[in-house]
Formats: sequence, C-alpha cells, structure tokens
Amino acid sequence: MSGAATNMRVKLPVICLVLEITLIILFGVLVEYDHDTDAKLWHKSNQSDYENNFYYRYPSFQDVHVMIFIGFGFLMTFLQRYGFSSVGFNFLIAAFSLQWATLMQGFFHGMHSGKIHIGVESMINADFCTGAVLISFGAVLGKTSPVQLLVMAMFEVTLFAVNEYILLSLLGARDAGGSMTIHTFGAYFGLVVTRVLYRPNLNKSKHKNCSVYHSDLFAMIGTLYLWMFWPSFNSAVTAHGDDQHRTAMNTYYSLASCTLATYGMSALTAHDGKLDMVHIQNAALAGGVAIGTAGEMMLTPFGSMIVGFLAGVISVLGFKYLSPILEKKLKIQDTCGVHNLHGMPGVLGAIVGAVTAAFATTEIYGGGMNDVFPDIASGQVQSSGQAGYQAISLLVTLGMALFGGIIVGFILKLPIYGSPPDTICYEDSIYWEVPGEEETHDDQLTTVRADEIEKLNS
Amino acid sequence: MSGAATNMRVKLPVICLVLEITLIILFGVLVEYDHDTDAKLWHKSNQSDYENNFYYRYPSFQDVHVMIFIGFGFLMTFLQRYGFSSVGFNFLIAAFSLQWATLMQGFFHGMHSGKIHIGVESMINADFCTGAVLISFGAVLGKTSPVQLLVMAMFEVTLFAVNEYILLSLLGARDAGGSMTIHTFGAYFGLVVTRVLYRPNLNKSKHKNCSVYHSDLFAMIGTLYLWMFWPSFNSAVTAHGDDQHRTAMNTYYSLASCTLATYGMSALTAHDGKLDMVHIQNAALAGGVAIGTAGEMMLTPFGSMIVGFLAGVISVLGFKYLSPILEKKLKIQDTCGVHNLHGMPGVLGAIVGAVTAAFATTEIYGGGMNDVFPDIASGQVQSSGQAGYQAISLLVTLGMALFGGIIVGFILKLPIYGSPPDTICYEDSIYWEVPGEEETHDDQLTTVRADEIEKLNS
Amino acid sequence: MSGAATNMRVKLPVICLVLEITLIILFGVLVEYDHDTDAKLWHKSNQSDYENNFYYRYPSFQDVHVMIFIGFGFLMTFLQRYGFSSVGFNFLIAAFSLQWATLMQGFFHGMHSGKIHIGVESMINADFCTGAVLISFGAVLGKTSPVQLLVMAMFEVTLFAVNEYILLSLLGARDAGGSMTIHTFGAYFGLVVTRVLYRPNLNKSKHKNCSVYHSDLFAMIGTLYLWMFWPSFNSAVTAHGDDQHRTAMNTYYSLASCTLATYGMSALTAHDGKLDMVHIQNAALAGGVAIGTAGEMMLTPFGSMIVGFLAGVISVLGFKYLSPILEKKLKIQDTCGVHNLHGMPGVLGAIVGAVTAAFATTEIYGGGMNDVFPDIASGQVQSSGQAGYQAISLLVTLGMALFGGIIVGFILKLPIYGSPPDTICYEDSIYWEVPGEEETHDDQLTTVRADEIEKLNS
Repeated sequence: MSGAATNMRVKLPVICLVLEITLIILFGVLVEYDHDTDAKLWHKSNQSDYENNFYYRYPSFQDVHVMIFIGFGFLMTFLQRYGFSSVGFNFLIAAFSLQWATLMQGFFHGMHSGKIHIGVESMINADFCTGAVLISFGAVLGKTSPVQLLVMAMFEVTLFAVNEYILLSLLGARDAGGSMTIHTFGAYFGLVVTRVLYRPNLNKSKHKNCSVYHSDLFAMIGTLYLWMFWPSFNSAVTAHGDDQHRTAMNTYYSLASCTLATYGMSALTAHDGKLDMVHIQNAALAGGVAIGTAGEMMLTPFGSMIVGFLAGVISVLGFKYLSPILEKKLKIQDTCGVHNLHGMPGVLGAIVGAVTAAFATTEIYGGGMNDVFPDIASGQVQSSGQAGYQAISLLVTLGMALFGGIIVGFILKLPIYGSPPDTICYEDSIYWEVPGEEETHDDQLTTVRADEIEKLNS
Repeated sequence: MSGAATNMRVKLPVICLVLEITLIILFGVLVEYDHDTDAKLWHKSNQSDYENNFYYRYPSFQDVHVMIFIGFGFLMTFLQRYGFSSVGFNFLIAAFSLQWATLMQGFFHGMHSGKIHIGVESMINADFCTGAVLISFGAVLGKTSPVQLLVMAMFEVTLFAVNEYILLSLLGARDAGGSMTIHTFGAYFGLVVTRVLYRPNLNKSKHKNCSVYHSDLFAMIGTLYLWMFWPSFNSAVTAHGDDQHRTAMNTYYSLASCTLATYGMSALTAHDGKLDMVHIQNAALAGGVAIGTAGEMMLTPFGSMIVGFLAGVISVLGFKYLSPILEKKLKIQDTCGVHNLHGMPGVLGAIVGAVTAAFATTEIYGGGMNDVFPDIASGQVQSSGQAGYQAISLLVTLGMALFGGIIVGFILKLPIYGSPPDTICYEDSIYWEVPGEEETHDDQLTTVRADEIEKLNS
Repeated sequence: MSGAATNMRVKLPVICLVLEITLIILFGVLVEYDHDTDAKLWHKSNQSDYENNFYYRYPSFQDVHVMIFIGFGFLMTFLQRYGFSSVGFNFLIAAFSLQWATLMQGFFHGMHSGKIHIGVESMINADFCTGAVLISFGAVLGKTSPVQLLVMAMFEVTLFAVNEYILLSLLGARDAGGSMTIHTFGAYFGLVVTRVLYRPNLNKSKHKNCSVYHSDLFAMIGTLYLWMFWPSFNSAVTAHGDDQHRTAMNTYYSLASCTLATYGMSALTAHDGKLDMVHIQNAALAGGVAIGTAGEMMLTPFGSMIVGFLAGVISVLGFKYLSPILEKKLKIQDTCGVHNLHGMPGVLGAIVGAVTAAFATTEIYGGGMNDVFPDIASGQVQSSGQAGYQAISLLVTLGMALFGGIIVGFILKLPIYGSPPDTICYEDSIYWEVPGEEETHDDQLTTVRADEIEKLNS
C-alpha cells in the first residue's frame, strides 16, 4: 500500500538519531544549570527555598506541558484514521522542538559568558516555541511525512527565536501569551508552507479528511485541556505576583465569553441549527489566543470578555465562510483551520495589545508599571510609543512568517522526505503499523471486513 | 429527523448572545480586580510575591477546573450516542455558569463599596457553583435542550448563591468542600426538576439510555479525574497552611476507602458476581462528596476512611435498589443516578460535619480553631451550637433545593425551549451535526450501514 | 461463559471489605496527623503558611497521582477487550496499595513514639510504592483475577517497604525517582511472578492479546501523562529548592532525548519502516525510568540526555528482540513488556546513579552536598563509598525482587483466587458486566452481531 518512497526505514532513523546526537553534543558544549537549578550557586545565595523560581512557575509549566502534548496532540485526532499520526507526530516534533528551542532561544537571550543558562523559565519558553511549530503542523496535518515535519520544526524553531528576539529584545514589545510570537507566527508560517505544498489532487483523499464519532470525542479531550490550561499558558512567564494572577484571570474570562459566542454563532451558521463540532473544538479556544498579548495588562475582566467574544465570533465565521474561500481561491489547504483559531485571533490579540498599551498610565498601573511595561516605567518610551512598537511587532511577525514560510515551504517540497501521495493522505497506515480490528466472537460486537460483506453481496 | 421545534437556529444563538452581552455589561459596571490581581494595589502593599494568594490557590483551582470540564463532562459520556452533548453541553453551561456565579456570589459576599472584587478565590467559588449546576445536569441528562439547560443554570446559580449566603454568612456554617452547598443542593434541585419534567413515555428511548464499550472507557476518564483531584476540590478554599494540607489528606483517604467498599459492594450486588461499571464510575466518588464538610476538620484519617467506606456502601446500594424505586414509585428519572453519588452522600457529609463540629475542642484544634471554626474561637457559639447550625444548614439546603427545583422545573416545562421528544432522547444527532462513520476500504475495518444489511437480508 | 470458579460474588467482596476494615482499624490505632497537617501543632510553631510542606509538594503529588491512576491505568488499555479491567483493576489495587503502603512505609520510617505521622510526603511515598505494584500488574495483565491482584499487592507493598528501608535507611543509598526501589523492584518482582504463573496454553487467548485502533489511542493518553509528569515524579520528594528544580529539568531533557531515540529505533527495527505503537507507548518513557536515581544529582542536561538516549535504544531493542526470547526460552509471559520499560532502564538508572555519585565533589555541589549526599557532606562516606552503596542497593533490590517474586508467585498459584482459564485471558467479560454495542438505526452507524452475519451467510 505504501510505496518505497514513503518507507521510513532509513530516513526517519537517520534524521532522529543525527538530530538527537547533535543536540546532545551542543548541550554538552553550551548548556549549564542556571542559578536556581545549580546546587552550588543556589546554596551560595542564601535565599529561602520558597523563593526558588520553581515554586512560582512549575505548576504553570506542567499545565503548558499538558497543552503541548495532550492539548495539541488530541485536538488533531479528529480525523477518522489519523489518530496515531496526530498524537504520535505531535509527540515526536514536540520532543525535538523543545530541545532545539532551548538552544535557539538561549543563543538569543540566555547567553552568559558563552553558556546558555537553563531552568524552569527556559523550559516554559521552549514549550511555547514548540507550540508555534504544532500550530503550523495543524495546517499541514495529514499531508506530510514525519521527516518533513522534523525538517520544518528545525527551521521554524530557528525563525521563531529570531522573531521573538526582534520583538521582545529589540522592539521592547510585550507578548506574554504569544498572540504574536506564537499564534500569529505559527499560523501564518504554516499557512504559507501548506500553500507552497499545494496538492491539486488532494480531493482523492477527501473521504478521509473528516471525523467519525469517537474521533471527535478524542479531539474534545484536546480542546478542553487547551481551554482549561490557557490561563496558565498566558501567565506562565509574566512577572511574579499580581501579574501572573491577573493574566490567568483575564484569560479565564476571555475564554468563558468566547465559548458562549462560539455556541451561539455555531448554531446560527451551521446546517439546520445544529451545532458543529469543528466550531466547538476550535473557535471556543480563540479567546485564549486573542488575550495572549493584553492578558497581563490592566485590561479588566470586562475588556477580556469583549475580546473573547469577538474572537469567538470571528473564528466561527472564519471556519464557515473564509476557509472554503482560502482553499478555492488562494489554494491554501488548511487541515485544522489554524487560520481561524490562531491566525485571525492572533492578529486581533496583537491589535488589542497595542491599543491597551496605548492607554497605560501610572494612575492605573502604579508600582506595577515596571512589571508590565518596563520601558514606560523607565521613561524610555511613552504609552503611545509602546503601542507603536506593539503594532510594528505584528508587522514584523507577519513578515517573518510569510518570508520564512515560503523558503521553508520550498525546502519541504524537495521530493526526498517520503511525503504521502495524494491518494493516501490523512491515513495512519502509511507510516504506522495499524492493528486489525476486534475479533468476532460469541456474545460480542463484531465488526465485519469489507470483503466478507462483498462475498455476502455476491 | 428533528422536528422544527427542536431546531436551535434561532433559540440557541439568541440566548447565548443575549446572556453573554448582558454578562459583559454587568461585568463592566460591577466587577473590579481585587487586591491581589490589581497592579497598583498589590504593589502598594509591599508584600512579597510569594504571599500573593495566587500561589496558595492556583494549583488547586486548576485541579477544580479539570474536574468541572473534563471530570463532569466525560463522566456523562457513558451514554452510547450522547457524548457530544455530554461533553459539549457541559462545556457550554459551565462556561456560562462560572461567569454568572461570579456576579451572583459577588452580590452576596464580595461587594466592596458597590463593586465586586475578584481573584483566584472567586474563580474557585464560581467553579464550585458551576459544579452544582452540572450535578443537576446529570439528573436531566439526555432529556433537555441546551436552551433549557442555560435557563436552568441561570436560576440554579442564583438560588445556589442565596443558599450559600444563608449557610456560610448568616448561619456561620462550615462547608469547605460543599457537601451541602454543592452536592446536596445540586442533587436534590436536579431531582426535583427531573420529577417535574417527568416523561411517561421515556421508555421509547430506552435502548439509547445505556453505554457501549468505548463510551464506558471515556466515562472512566471523567471518573478518575474527579477522584484524583477531589482532594484539591475540598481543600481549594480552606484556610492557608495546615487546613489546606489536612483537608486534601482527609479526602485522599476517604476516597481510597470508598473505592474498596465500592468494588466489594458492586461484586456482591451485581449480576453473577461481575463488577458493574456504573458503580465504579460513580460510587467510588461518593467518598469525596461525603467528606466535603468535615474534610477541613480534625476528623483524622481514621474518621475519613469510615466516612468514605459508608459513602461507598450507601452509594452502590442506592444504584442497585433505590434508583429503580425512585423511578417507578416517585417518577424520578435520574439519568446519572445523582441521588446516589451526590444526594445521599451529600446528606451523609452534612451529618458527619455536624457531628464532628460537636466534638471540636481547643485541646484538639489549638490555635487552629480560628481557621476551622472562627465562631467557636471567638466565643460566639459553643461546639454544640456550631453543630446545630450545621444541621439547620442541611435542612435549609434541602428546602431551597426542593422549593427552587419545583419552580424552576415548571419554568422549564414551558414548551418553548425545543426539548427533544420522548422518542429521541439520549441522542446527539438532534442538536449536533454527527459525522458519518469510517469509510469502507481495502485492508481496514468496515462498519456497515443498516440499510446495506437490510438489503443483504432481503 | 465464566465458570463458577471465576465468579467473584463472594471472593471479591470478602477480600475488599475485610482488607478495608482492617486498614481502618490499623489507621485508627496507629496513624496521626504530622506537624504540617495538625491544626494545633502547626499553629504552635509560628511558621508562615507558605512554609507549610503542602505548597512545596502538593502540585507534584497531584501529578504523581495522575500518573498512577490515569497514566498506568490507560497505558494498559491497549488490549482490545481489556480496557475495563486495565483501568478498573488498576484503580482498585492502587486505592488499596496507597493505604497499605502508608502503614508499611510508616512502620519502617515514619514512627514517632508508636505513631505513624502522615502528610503530603507520606502521600507521595505511598503513591510511589503503588507504582511498583502497578508495574508488576503490567507483567501479569490479562491473566489474573482481581482477588489475586489484591493478594499480590498486599505482599508486594510489604516487601517494597522492607527493600526501601534497607536501601535508603540502612545503606544510605539515594534513589529519589525510584530507579531501583520502584522500577527495578516492581519489574523483576512482576516478571518472576508471571514466570511462576506460567501458562503453557496461553496461545489459546492469543487473538485477544493485541490492540485495536481506538484502544491504542486510549493507551496514548496513559503514555503522555506518564511522559509529561515524570519530571514531577522524580522531583516529588527531593529536597526543597534547587533540588526539586534540577531533578524536574534533568528528567524533562532525558525524556525528550529518549523520545527521539525511540522513534528512530522503532522505524529502524519495525516491519517495513513503519512505526510500532508498542514502542512509542512504552520505550519513549524509559528515559524517565533511567534518570530516576541520578536525576537529583548534578548530572547536567547533557548527561541526562545521554541517559535518555541509551534508555530509548535499549528499550526498543528489548521489545523487538529480547521479549520474544524471554517468552520462548525463559517462559516469562510479560504482557506489557515491563522488562523493557521498567526492568532494563531501571538497572541502567541504578548504574548511572552509582557512577554519578562516584564523581560527587564539593567543588560541584557546594553547600548543596548536604541535600543530595548527606552522608558525603557529613564525612560519613567518600564519593566512592557512596557509589559502592548505590551498587549494592541494586543487587539487594534484584535479590529482594527475585526472592519475593518466587514466594508470592507460588502463593498466587493456589487455585482459590478465581483466575481466568487459558482460553479467556485478556477478556473483560469474565469479571465485568460488558455492555452490548450500539443499536442499529436509520441514519447511523450500525455494528452487526456475529449471529446476524452467520444468518446472512447461511
């Protein structure tokens, strides 16, 4: 069934083992424990144990970790015969990306006298970067080989780190939950890649590009974990104290509001007034994306709920009306609809962030200005300036994503990665040993093989 | 298949969008960041970041959040064709209830000069209130439209907040894990509602009111998350320090003990000595319910295990012998058996709480009396008085649930919500786009459509 | 279908209820709140609430708890018709073991003037001990009755506590994540038990000893939760501060590295270059096992990644080449391949721990030496001596596991526990009420019963 080209016997082991060995060597040369993880340094500092960054960040880290591996992984199991690949390739590229991101992000903002210092914050940031890769994975889901995905991850992590460096370090933008760095970047990068990899004959696999009853339930596991833990995601690297607290709460209300908007819009637009699982699984999460930049700011629960509401509305409308247009007119085959969940809500989030920054005053932030807008606190910029840098950051991100996506798309188009033919997309059995189904016996369910039925028919 | 009456095209969007917009406006007018989430206030106070309430409560909050969305949601997926609705309506009414609860609970005990102050504790309390609504949802599962559920949630949240206010603020009762406020209230409210909504011809949908193999496994995800995180639930809003610690531990042992009792009783009572999934999925959790009030008290692990044991025994016996009687004699169609999981164990928990309070002495509690029984510590009441108030609280709760349930039941009986006909209960396809099943092809499972079989038969 | 011998009507209730009542009595006599959970003691000490051990350990505890109940439980659902038993028996024996372990571990290292003092640390340790029992369960999965499993758990917990006492208290070995005490012990104990219980005619149930598509997805839930939370597992009882932080991080990198090695080796060795779910579900976790002992040490991320890489390679090779040999030549029927996931990686972890200890110097550890190697810090042993004790600990563990496994194996061989006949292994319906399958109706999936097909055939 699978041609020689898609056989992974040589390709996948070579890339996995070479990448991992390279990573190990680079870690050996470059990486060190940071102050809070090093036995000697920590004990020299005479801090109380409860001041170790671990206790401020580790619970959030674990929530983020669950979003990356269970959330993204199971969200993509909605396809009827692509569950192994959705969860399994998600697992593979995430495990790679978080290591590679540790190095790339370290190069750009973690170097201390030639060494990269790591701890729980770098672990969270690595998971964040991995999130962007998994968003792009959603756009190309079902049409790529694991080797291709690893190559994409390698380049995308690198570009992510460059973009993040420009935004956060050079432009001084704020983007705690990554509306720009993670969602906008990941979505548009993936959309451009899938455009370059356009398959005109993909309709040959169309019958596989849909869900079945149980696969939609598995996907809801992913959705709900993303939804529940998004407050942890957006607050994971904000400043200690009120900032983490406020960010989590803003996100919580944005998501709740988004969910009601999503159900309303889904029943309004979907066939016969029935709810569409695609909307529930995806659009209900847009509130988390859109609050990514402004979540740490004094947006108020009121503001957060407005943002979530808009995100839900936009996202459902995108799934219903925009996605078919993107596919037909622009030839963008976006399997998971990442444009609707991450792309548009990410842009909305960036804009909300810029607007909220424009209204930042000492009256509102008091002594907390230094946590949220250090450049305003230090007098380096005005609120309006900060808003300008936020807006420029969105443009830079879009530019990096489009430019990077084109180049990486063409690299991924090389016919050497064993990507599936148009006739066998969205299908696990091309890369996985797929088990048979349940045996027939006495008092139990039997599922019947096609040929048996055919025999009966004739 | 679905008549015009059950079409949600207009009703669901209208109620979702109107409710959400109303919520947003009310939040805009009434809600403010509390001391620990406000940038200015927090930074004025010169507290250390690790003293922010976020670090005491947020991990527990996230566990509670998982119980609400995954725990309750998946517990109810045991029905063969109601998984979308179980998880999906759970998601919808929880997202609504937590916002509405923030306001209702805020009115009653969070007002500060006309404003409701919110932070992680109000988030937990809102999730708690949502829990009560989801318990009631369990009683009416499969027989209600999403519009009906939202209306129920709106009223139930309001009544919950009133009852909670009477118990905790007026009567000075203690109920950290909500044996009374959440479980007893939610269960009996739901039971009365389902009684009022009695469907004499429900047996027409009887073949759908049962599980299939995979749906029982999905339900176990819900069960286990509820079981594992119940220690966090009961301890989430107890006082900092030993109180949270002790409550979590008491709950842990109560649940462990309950589980062994459940397995024993299930094999003893079920057909042929075989274990019944319904018992395992539900009764094993009764230990968490029954320890809800007394969990924060100095009940000892010994006492906790006795409580858990009794709860497990009662719950299995309820499923086996009482539920059929309730249905036949009292016409209470309790889909999930919430009377056995939340009702009786909730009452048991209230009684255990009263008894434990009666034995509270300074010898046992020392300086911790102020945390657990502030009214005893301040000399306002004696132990026996506290016990009395605990007992009265149970009666008040039962009264509120019965009275409220009747009224709300009749409101829900109006034929305007698009509830399903008796012949199509417990069925997703009435409110959801349900996907087809897996495609037949070469070397893979095929599942055969009914009409194909019929063709073969003829 | 199930003979009288396997009927659990009497056996299971008796053992469950007798065990639980015994536990309750023993808890009543022996167990007390510790300093951090007792209201009086805690308030006497004038510590700040944030210093309560609850806040250092409870988030890790909950992660461990999820690994025990969801992780182990769902990992074993890969079998096509053994999901109820995998999750359900896992639940039962875990709920029993954690109570029994509290007592057994308390006897050996928690006694204070005749009483066992308990708190969050004892809860974690009890869950750890439970982990060993669940590993052994993996070896005998599908071939044992719940009564047999409870008896096994009773003995294994006891032996675990003895072994742990010898290692940690007498020999002064370090084993924070339990490479020796949990994984090596649990695996080899289980392997010897399954050897003693050897079933020559097990091939009669061979058709059931494999996965189906959805069961493999359920198993991935287990895998991913184990994978994500392993950093919490290994760091759960290490010293506060840098130690917990470092251990979590070392484990994170070991697992990431192990995952890439696993995917590479799986494609290299499996049929046709396709990935094998068995490897992904299991071998990708070996990195967590192998870093169990050395994770808290100054192993560096570099060292951790090497350990993870080796563990992944060894584990896949074990599944591919060693397991068949063990079954054929040594008659060890290891259902879940625990030798490959816990056995060999556990031994590797013990060796890595000994080697890392040998290189411990004050130059590296500074003031942190006291946390990681208190005996070296106090001058009681040299690094080489510590390494020696670590190595001896491995031998003691293997000895205890083999010796204990033989005895317990023969106890479990008594024909009184209602274990399943060779023809009905790996089958839920022998101990569980198994629901029918989905009803046929109009526009929906139907699954056809065997007899219908037979009718059609004739």
